[in-house]
Amino acid sequence: MAQFRVGLLGHGTVGAAFAQLLPRRAARIERITGLSPVLSGVLTRSGGGSFDDLLERSDLIVELIGGLDPARDYLLRAIRAGLHVVTANKQLLSHHGEELWDEARSHGVQLRFEGAVAGVVPVIRVLQESLAGARIQRVHGIVNGTTNFILTEMARTGCAFSEALAEAQRLGYAEADPSEDVDGRDAAAKMAIIARLAFETPVHIDQVRYEGIERIAPDDLEYARELGLGLKLIGTAERIGDDRMSVSVHPAFLYPGHPLASVNGPFNAVTVESEEITEITMSGPGAGGPQTASAVLGDVISAMIPPASTPPATERLQVAGDIVSAFYLHLEVADQPGVLAQVAHVLAGQGVSVKSVVQKGLGDQARLVMVLHPVLESRFAAAMREIAALPVVRAAPRAIRVIEEEFV
Amino acid sequence: MAQFRVGLLGHGTVGAAFAQLLPRRAARIERITGLSPVLSGVLTRSGGGSFDDLLERSDLIVELIGGLDPARDYLLRAIRAGLHVVTANKQLLSHHGEELWDEARSHGVQLRFEGAVAGVVPVIRVLQESLAGARIQRVHGIVNGTTNFILTEMARTGCAFSEALAEAQRLGYAEADPSEDVDGRDAAAKMAIIARLAFETPVHIDQVRYEGIERIAPDDLEYARELGLGLKLIGTAERIGDDRMSVSVHPAFLYPGHPLASVNGPFNAVTVESEEITEITMSGPGAGGPQTASAVLGDVISAMIPPASTPPATERLQVAGDIVSAFYLHLEVADQPGVLAQVAHVLAGQGVSVKSVVQKGLGDQARLVMVLHPVLESRFAAAMREIAALPVVRAAPRAIRVIEEEFV
Repeated sequence: MAQFRVGLLGHGTVGAAFAQLLPRRAARIERITGLSPVLSGVLTRSGGGSFDDLLERSDLIVELIGGLDPARDYLLRAIRAGLHVVTANKQLLSHHGEELWDEARSHGVQLRFEGAVAGVVPVIRVLQESLAGARIQRVHGIVNGTTNFILTEMARTGCAFSEALAEAQRLGYAEADPSEDVDGRDAAAKMAIIARLAFETPVHIDQVRYEGIERIAPDDLEYARELGLGLKLIGTAERIGDDRMSVSVHPAFLYPGHPLASVNGPFNAVTVESEEITEITMSGPGAGGPQTASAVLGDVISAMIPPASTPPATERLQVAGDIVSAFYLHLEVADQPGVLAQVAHVLAGQGVSVKSVVQKGLGDQARLVMVLHPVLESRFAAAMREIAALPVVRAAPRAIRVIEEEFV
Repeated sequence: MAQFRVGLLGHGTVGAAFAQLLPRRAARIERITGLSPVLSGVLTRSGGGSFDDLLERSDLIVELIGGLDPARDYLLRAIRAGLHVVTANKQLLSHHGEELWDEARSHGVQLRFEGAVAGVVPVIRVLQESLAGARIQRVHGIVNGTTNFILTEMARTGCAFSEALAEAQRLGYAEADPSEDVDGRDAAAKMAIIARLAFETPVHIDQVRYEGIERIAPDDLEYARELGLGLKLIGTAERIGDDRMSVSVHPAFLYPGHPLASVNGPFNAVTVESEEITEITMSGPGAGGPQTASAVLGDVISAMIPPASTPPATERLQVAGDIVSAFYLHLEVADQPGVLAQVAHVLAGQGVSVKSVVQKGLGDQARLVMVLHPVLESRFAAAMREIAALPVVRAAPRAIRVIEEEFV
């Protein structure tokens, strides 16, 4: 199979994760694209080596060194050499995006940058492709995970900004020098890129008004709770009339129904509004090595082949006959002692353990409601049949699955 | 400019919305693709006309008639004639997807179907393109807006299933014959398509276990509230070990932190989990003529040209100097009568009206906290300067923007 050679610039958190991910997913990428992806070389800021050499040995350049220089120069040289390029560099695009996009167009190569905004949350692709036919009215975004984590901590614990920042640093959600995150400049760069795509207007980071969260006090969050509001650092890109727009980043309160109100911790999220689509919201981890590397890899695959068709179904997973689920169980029971003991005995006999129980009502209204820990559905079904046959159970049991908050 | 001729099958809710949307967005599509899109003809189930004629006059076929026949035959004939095709037909793809995808691949044409699952929520594109490099572990989805509206109503009002269904029908969220929605079959078709893409395994709708919401009782929702849970109709596609999967649709309880727990009313949402990406969630309107038509149009544009580059910035929107915002205002004030009156007088003088007020604390702790209605930021800033100068205001006022729940 023909090779597709990927030259990598940068070997920090995202770069190293990308270098690990590419070989792990190579077999799948071969099935999708018909090409075998290989890492042709890695150039780091400090590591020496020749960029011209790397160019000659590559079909595509992935830029993950960050900053303006030499990233800009490297990307321009790759584009002029006719290579597709993928970058996650928000500062570069918010300063020199038009130059790079113009150059890519005139050389007929792809410049992809999903990882530059909100990590693996597919904001860029959705704005550029899914919504290519929509007239976008407004975008709201939580596009900085550090500040969202800090505000979530302040709301949860009542602590001061400085304490929440220290906790974020301890957990790796904030850097040793957190100023670009907490003062809003990082979010401003991302909103400049979003506004460029949403409104087809050149937007430079210096045109974005921004404000950080350093001056948010614990009692702002306390009053907010009384008023029923949540506090986030919100980027806004908004069309005003026919020929104006506003792009800004500010701390802002959200009413509980707002789709961004429930986005907590280091997550990012973006809501896009237009007359045709009403609104769509996307959310997920806004940073992290493996997550951002996944966004970069999605871009690389798209650059390898226009995704013109659904790949053949090369897997043959079997449909499982019996799976593990957690259940809620609702029983109408006799109002007498020992009912819970009988039901619990049956459950224990099938290996079903109880997470929580509510007993309610008297006489005909007596109810036993339980949440059970995950168990094979066949075991649960057997327990249900036994429970339904108990004389103290007065009507058919009702069971509903429970989905727990769990990450892979 | 060269024309790109779109032949339309079907003129129901989505078809009619698409026929309206295409000419409205034609100028933008020309800028992106370099081609001028025109509607070459419309064929309806009842309207007569020749499909062969339409094929000859078209570069792409949009299928929005629904059902298995004649949709399957039309799409196969279009593909064999070398035309790209776009469809929103979930029943067809969940029955005959492999046949259609194989045929499209072997003829080198695109078969796109974003509108078939969750309307304008970009589930299909994200699974196929953004996450092409990820090994997906699990997908959870609220993929039927009718049932989500009914469950939201039952939770909100305590009413019975039949009453909530009647309300859904009154508002146009449920059809006269709602059985495919409420019994889970519509969601099952969508989960079959999602599982096919997530696991690269052929999935037929008959392999999806499904259950509806007809038997959900008001007290299930009441007990759920006591247990801190929310109830949704959840589709699950899950990888089990290395060679098995499970695809199902069931009513299920969600813990409040789950990203789908806050998806209410007729909205759809899908959460995708994998080791590399942690999880991403997408949400938005799952149906509706203009919304689904937007998804179809995004597919048509992608089929017109591989989105290889960021289009030139053809707009030149100005950055607005002064915009309208709502504010929260936090004042440390003297603990004496008349403070609110003085502040309200200043606000009124600048045309700022008050939405809600909380007065708290005594002595040095006296605070006046307000939420204000939207106003030009320059007027608000002028009011802030006057308020800061009031002798009864003892420290610099703190203001934070408030984002209201409002749709375009």
